[in-house]
Formats: sequence, structure tokens, C-alpha cells
Amino acid sequence: MNPVEIIRKKREKKALTENEIEFIISKYTEGALPDYQMSAFLMAGYLNGFNKNETAYLTKAMLYSGKVVDLSKIAGIKVDKHSTGGVGDKTSLIIAPIAAAAGVKVPMISGRGLGHTGGTLDKLEAIPGFSTSLDLNKYKSIIKTCGAVLIGQTKEIAPADKLIYALRDVPATVESIPLITGSIMSKKLAEGIDGLVLDVKTGSGAFMKSYRDAKLLAQSLTNTAKAFDKKVITFITDMNQPLGNYIGNWLEVHESINVLKGEEIKDLLEVSLNLAGAMLYMGGKADSIKQGIKISRDMINSGKAFAKFVEMVKLQGGNVNIVNNPDRYPKADIIYEIKSGHSGYLKTIDNYEIGMASLELGAGRKTKEDKIDYAAGIIFYPKIGQKIYKGDLIATLFTNKRDRIKPAEERILAAMKFSKNKVNAPKLIKEIIY
Amino acid sequence: MNPVEIIRKKREKKALTENEIEFIISKYTEGALPDYQMSAFLMAGYLNGFNKNETAYLTKAMLYSGKVVDLSKIAGIKVDKHSTGGVGDKTSLIIAPIAAAAGVKVPMISGRGLGHTGGTLDKLEAIPGFSTSLDLNKYKSIIKTCGAVLIGQTKEIAPADKLIYALRDVPATVESIPLITGSIMSKKLAEGIDGLVLDVKTGSGAFMKSYRDAKLLAQSLTNTAKAFDKKVITFITDMNQPLGNYIGNWLEVHESINVLKGEEIKDLLEVSLNLAGAMLYMGGKADSIKQGIKISRDMINSGKAFAKFVEMVKLQGGNVNIVNNPDRYPKADIIYEIKSGHSGYLKTIDNYEIGMASLELGAGRKTKEDKIDYAAGIIFYPKIGQKIYKGDLIATLFTNKRDRIKPAEERILAAMKFSKNKVNAPKLIKEIIY
Repeated sequence: MNPVEIIRKKREKKALTENEIEFIISKYTEGALPDYQMSAFLMAGYLNGFNKNETAYLTKAMLYSGKVVDLSKIAGIKVDKHSTGGVGDKTSLIIAPIAAAAGVKVPMISGRGLGHTGGTLDKLEAIPGFSTSLDLNKYKSIIKTCGAVLIGQTKEIAPADKLIYALRDVPATVESIPLITGSIMSKKLAEGIDGLVLDVKTGSGAFMKSYRDAKLLAQSLTNTAKAFDKKVITFITDMNQPLGNYIGNWLEVHESINVLKGEEIKDLLEVSLNLAGAMLYMGGKADSIKQGIKISRDMINSGKAFAKFVEMVKLQGGNVNIVNNPDRYPKADIIYEIKSGHSGYLKTIDNYEIGMASLELGAGRKTKEDKIDYAAGIIFYPKIGQKIYKGDLIATLFTNKRDRIKPAEERILAAMKFSKNKVNAPKLIKEIIY
Repeated sequence: MNPVEIIRKKREKKALTENEIEFIISKYTEGALPDYQMSAFLMAGYLNGFNKNETAYLTKAMLYSGKVVDLSKIAGIKVDKHSTGGVGDKTSLIIAPIAAAAGVKVPMISGRGLGHTGGTLDKLEAIPGFSTSLDLNKYKSIIKTCGAVLIGQTKEIAPADKLIYALRDVPATVESIPLITGSIMSKKLAEGIDGLVLDVKTGSGAFMKSYRDAKLLAQSLTNTAKAFDKKVITFITDMNQPLGNYIGNWLEVHESINVLKGEEIKDLLEVSLNLAGAMLYMGGKADSIKQGIKISRDMINSGKAFAKFVEMVKLQGGNVNIVNNPDRYPKADIIYEIKSGHSGYLKTIDNYEIGMASLELGAGRKTKEDKIDYAAGIIFYPKIGQKIYKGDLIATLFTNKRDRIKPAEERILAAMKFSKNKVNAPKLIKEIIY
């Protein structure tokens, strides 16, 4: 097979065969296809598209570029959740222990944050001692004993995805729905799961800002999961404002603990219960999502979910005392309160800007090499539709870098638009596809 | 400026500014833009196109990546001809001495053959001693004294084009009309010319097989020449069969000498006289192309054109004895005659196949590293529309590789289609644009 002919074929908008896609991906993974051919292939694919079958072939080729974990010897249905990411999106920390407490096996291989969105690994590593770099044997043993595990992508998992992702300064890799699908699904399918709950975010703080794009991605992910005979339920949920109030790594662990201990954080709880409910239904522990939601609530109320969280933290080397007494966590040096300069109904939030403000305070990375300040972040109080008066507390900033306070404050205040008239809160669960 | 944003802009089908194009090309030439970004840029450009202005900016950026020769101190109008290449297309060797003999200055910087088409440099180098690698000072001095010079691309000329051309295993570089335009015109404009006669070939032996593509390229080249305030006359000519009868490096020199000495090789003479006529008109030596054709014929009949050819060969170190007595040139070891197995009117020739047969016999290169056998090639006798009888001589093959005879014979015979009914010869000069 000739890579030039395959690139030409895609350039001419023809559908590629499974063999052709496998050839391109495997040659690239071996280092036998130069970067400049891969980037031309990706650009041609971006502009001319990949159909449903080609997307499945891409995913398969990326999946089998590495190891696929075999969890068949562990009893029970293995279900993971994947979110496309957002601001304050900490549901993994809440729903993994809920689902495990209810008897579903939750093998999670997660990523780090980059840009305005956080990453589950970074959040968990905010817990002193918590290790996310476990090998696959340890991964299996924790799934077996505890039911939930959360580790980082190992070298063995989908190396093709890592290599293609590294070409991200070619503006096609990161914005093509088939390529995003291949990237997400190759890693998720490598976990050894039986089913996957997907949370595709849409709105100003999401990767997919428009509903149209979010829906296209949701459909592509759902189709691909089905092509691999996996159970799948896909949610499209709102990301026009932070989910919950806490943004930043430790702050999000803290808020997750609050929810697991029974605090009623309305929006965060609603999304978490829906996702966990779907996982329970998929895992055979409930007859419907609705019943799954009820059982999930029971897991919180009975303390079983929080106990499972503590168990998981302990097994992964984390400091259980801090988790039990989150107020003892070392605070950031500077804690600064922002007050509203306006009165009115909060109409819109540019949620990307809230995420970027948190990043600027030290909670995130601009480049892969940046170090994270686990204590940095924002508690952001208002919600869209809420009546706000001049002087009301808008946010509390946490940082160790004094010079970042002013720019972050300006960014947050500029991100909010007010209206004289009543404004409706955005619908949180926009669509469920399965 | 950010290359990723420029690539993204082209990906989104937006027109780029002169600065943006200059940035991409100059950074790439400096080595500051990686190949994989350039290849993504080229693929996006291939698929989304470059408009007339962008094509001129591309050409300009490639032109000024290197040196632009200044011929302003040499008296007279400097005119070059460029052909997009074909099988048996040896007109440069005929028209450069004709035009120089008539007083036009002809500074030619030419290329080598690759694939089924020959290259003027290779043909001239078939003359023992002939050097095409002269420096720019020697180039200027020969233009001044002799009026015509023919050299290869120096390192100083359009280095950006060389680098972009080296990405040819990305299937966008070699097939995009704006990129072809930039590649041709940046090198031609660097020669220091006042005007350019273009010969865009169309048909089975041409780079642009369809008339539509040939016309688009012709218009793009013409527009770009005009954007640089150059005189330009563009011919679209037929390449559905070899031009003249001789194909292969020395063989084409030989046939050119025959024409310069007055032999009436109808099709080759017609195209050559038209191109030379246009050069004379452009160079102020004739009031029309028609008058230019008449003067060109006079240059042949008077022996002035052939004398000029000999002068040029001598100045570039070539063996004048061989040029004066071309039959003394060492023949290929194997000379093999092909006879027709069919009777009928010759309807079509797959001229690409004739070019490839010549290449297989040793006359061309499959890769840049291949060595050329100057004596190898084909004399191909029939022309479309001609009545042929079974057993008629079709071609004489010249080669030093015995095992290539059979495949070449099969290729040539399979390339010809016959008809019981009369067939018209294709029109040779299809269009003149200026």
C-alpha cells in the first residue's frame, strides 16, 4: 500500500477502507510515516470528512496500536464515564464511588487538564500522596477489590493517539469530530469496559460551544461505541456556567466530598445523579436511569458513596485524613473576594473566561510543561437567572501569585452580562441519546 | 504572526493576506516552520484554493526567497519560453537560437526531466561537454554576447520552491494550480526577464490531461505574469501524441538540429514557429506573431538559427563537431524495430505510455537519483489520423538494456487505438491567450 495514494484518495473525498486507515495509523505509530504526510492526511480528513465506518476504523486502528486491557476475569459489568470537559466539571470524583458502592465496576483511565478545562488526574493528585500512575496489574486489582480506580494513560494505551495528539499545532487534529471521536474512544475502549456513559458538554465553557457541534460529536461517539458492541448512553449537558461553585483542583475535590457527604449543590448533584443513574442502569443495578438516580441518591444518603471514595483514595496512596477533614488542607496564601459592580439578573457568563481566570491564578496549564498549584482556583457563587445586587459577593479567588488577582478579577467581571428583565436558567440535561 | 492561525484561516476557506503568505513561505525557507505544518498548509490550500491575488503573493514570496537576476544593464528585451512539458517536446532547443538569431535576448533557466516528460537540461547535457551548471555571472555574459543561454536552477534561485517541491510525496504540492503557478513563475521571474511565452500542454502526454485544467493553469500563469508587469503570451497546445518523432535526450537534440537545418517536421515546426514568432513579437522584432513566424522561418532558411545554436553550444563547453555531424554520436547497443499488428486509422495514442516506454529504455528518471542513458529513446513514426497497415514500422527503440525491449514494445503497441473510419488529426495550437 502507498501512503501517498491513500492521502490522495481522502483528498479526493473518497471513503477509505479499513485496511487503508489501519495502514496509515500503524505506519505512523511505527515511525515509518513522516509527520508531514500524517498532517496532510489529517488536514484532508478534516476538510473532506470521515464517515461513520471510517471513524470506527480510525478508532480501531488507534485502539489496537496499543494494549487493550482484558477485564473479563473480573466479575460484573464494567462501566466508565467520559466527559468532554468543562469548568468545574468534577462529576467523575462523585459518580465513580457512587457506582462502585452500588456494585458497578468502574475502571477509569483519565487525562490531565489543558487550557481552560481541568483534568480528573490533576484533581485527584491534589490529594496528598494520591498516585494516578499505577501499572495495569495494580489497576486490575483495585477494580476487583474496590470497584473503582482512576489512573492516567499508560504508555501501552493507544500510543497512536498520543502521537497524533502531539501534532496538535496542526489545526485539524484537535477540531475534527471523527478525530476527536477516535482519540476519546480508542482510550476508553482500551480500558476493558462493557459500557460507557458519555457527557458531551455544550456552551461557552465547553470544547463544543455550539449545540450543533456537540450533537454531532455525541452522535459520532455513540455510533462508534455501538460499532464496538459497547453499551452506551450519551448525555448532552449545559456548560454555559461552572458546574457547582468550586473551580480548581483541590477546591473541586473539596466540593465533591461535600456532595458525597450529602450537601445539596443543585446543578452538580443533578448532573452527577443522572450520569451515575445511567451507569447503574447500564451496569445492571437498576431497571432504568430513573431508578438508577434513586439508588445513587441512596448511596450518598447512606454514606456508602463517601466510604467508597475514602477506600479508593486509600488504595491509591492518598491521605485519608485530609479527605475526612478537607478544611485542614493548606490554603492558598491569598484569598480575595470579588464584589459585583452591577445590579440585575445574571443573563450570560462567558464560562471560558472563568476557566481561564482559574488557570491564570495557578490552577491550570497553558502548556503541557506548566506546573499546577493545587490550592489555586475560584469559588464562583452566582448562577444564570439569579438576581444580583451591586456589592454582592461574586467570587472568592485563591492564589499564591499576587499579580494575578487583578487580571483575574477583571476577567471574571467582564465575563458576566446582566439584564433588567428576568432570565431563565439554562436547562441542565439537554438531551439523552441511546 | 502565528502559523497555526494562518493554516486555520486557509482551512476555513478565507483568503490570506500578502503578509500571511510571505510569513509562511519565509519561515519555511528559514527552517523555522516544520514540514508537517507546511504540508497541512498545502493540503488546506489544495482543497480550499488560493485566489488570483493569493497566487501572486505565493509567487512573490517564493521569488524573493532567493535572488532575482538583474539583466537591466544588458540591452534588448529579454524573453523566455516555458513549457509545462510533454513527450518529445524539444522546442526550447529550436526556438532559443531562432529568437537569439533575430536579436531577442533569451535567458533560460531550465529543469530536469522526471517521470514521463523530458527536461531541457538533460537533453543539452547529452551533447558531450555541454555544461548547464554555470554561475550567474557566466549566465549574464553569455546572454550579452550570444543572446541565448540555457542553465540549470542555481541554489540562489527560488530556494522556497525547491523546499516545497521536496514535499512532493504530499499529494497536493504537485497538483494544485496555484502551487504549480508559484513554482513555475517564481523561477521564471527570477531570471530577469521582461516577457514570457508560455506553452501549456494538454492531452494524454501532458501534465494537465484535461483541456479544462490546462486552461485554468494557462489563465493562472497568465494572470500571475501580468501581476508582475511582465509581457505574456500563453499557448495551449496539443500533447495527445509525441511532438516530432524523436523521444529521448540525444535523439531530441538530433531532431532539433534537423529542424534548425531546415527539415520540415510538420508538427514540431508548427509549434516551434508559433512560440518563436511570439517571442519575436514580444521582443520587439516583429509587429505580430504572424510576422514573427515569417522571420523565424527566415532564421532557419538563412542558417542563422543553426549557427546561433552552434555558438551557444560552444560557449557552454559542448562538442561542436558532434552538433555539426550528429550521425557520429555513439549509438545505443540495441536498436529494435516495432511493427504494427493492426490495420486502420490511428485514432488515439496514450502518450503518457510512450513517454514511460522511453523512460523504461533508459531515457528518463523514476526517482531523482536515477542515471540517464543519453542514447536511449524512441523514434515514433505514426501520427493520429494516419492510415496504418499491419507490418508497418511503428517505432525504433534505442537502449542499452536488453530486458527493457519487450515491456517497451508491449507498452507502445497497447498505447495505440485504431479505427476503421477516417480520423482527424488533433488541432495543434488550441488557443492563444494574451
